[in-house]
Amino acid sequence: MDTFMQAAIDEARQGLAEGGIPIGSVLVHEGRIIGRGHNRRVQCGSAILHGEMDALERAGRQNAQVYREATLYTTLSPCSMCSGAILLYGIGHVVVGENRTFMGEEQLLQSRGVRVEVLQDASCEQMMRDFIENHPALWNEDIGR
Amino acid sequence: MDTFMQAAIDEARQGLAEGGIPIGSVLVHEGRIIGRGHNRRVQCGSAILHGEMDALERAGRQNAQVYREATLYTTLSPCSMCSGAILLYGIGHVVVGENRTFMGEEQLLQSRGVRVEVLQDASCEQMMRDFIENHPALWNEDIGR
Repeated sequence: MDTFMQAAIDEARQGLAEGGIPIGSVLVHEGRIIGRGHNRRVQCGSAILHGEMDALERAGRQNAQVYREATLYTTLSPCSMCSGAILLYGIGHVVVGENRTFMGEEQLLQSRGVRVEVLQDASCEQMMRDFIENHPALWNEDIGR
Repeated sequence: MDTFMQAAIDEARQGLAEGGIPIGSVLVHEGRIIGRGHNRRVQCGSAILHGEMDALERAGRQNAQVYREATLYTTLSPCSMCSGAILLYGIGHVVVGENRTFMGEEQLLQSRGVRVEVLQDASCEQMMRDFIENHPALWNEDIGR
């Protein structure tokens, strides 16, 4: 397992342990994690802190060059909001744990020149399958359904 | 002036008074403001709290029906991130103060069925022109340039 995807999975598992939605993300620049986060809808009553957004927020204010050189790892295919954030900051490379339980805006990202890599990692997929089965209403809320 | 756009402008002005970027937003449901916010990049060291995101966050967790029936007012054309949030939650109607100083993802929103109304309000435009002239680096940071 890629060490950065493992860090994203660790974030997702931490979120689950907190009673939250198990999606995690890390932002990597020059081989170093500069921001790590997980979905905090439940924990913070948040409508915007998806895992990717939390990682971006915790990375703090960065200049455009850093974002362009960065890679965002996320356990799940990024939704419209998180994909929009990726486009805003011009993040050039996104590594996705899996897109079988939820397909985000990968096509839009690719059409704008973002390199999207999908690992189809079995542990990411199982984590989401279990969560969606056990908490369908919370999951639907998180993706605006 | 539309009372809800005026509330968004008031938010933008409050942000300016705090030393921040003057962009404000309100989320309206059934004729009532359920969330109001402004850009907090400077105030909170935030990479994600654009005006629209702040309004969504302050509205708190809402169900899908509320978002679908809601209108988002924003003093400036929404960037990729904020447009992505609008798409995530299926907000059907967006009222934009102006898009002359910055053109966001209005085409993408419209292509997904969002009704986008642009007021080209002179006070919104002047507020942004003054800000961009006085703080070009901060403005570029906010839009990922």
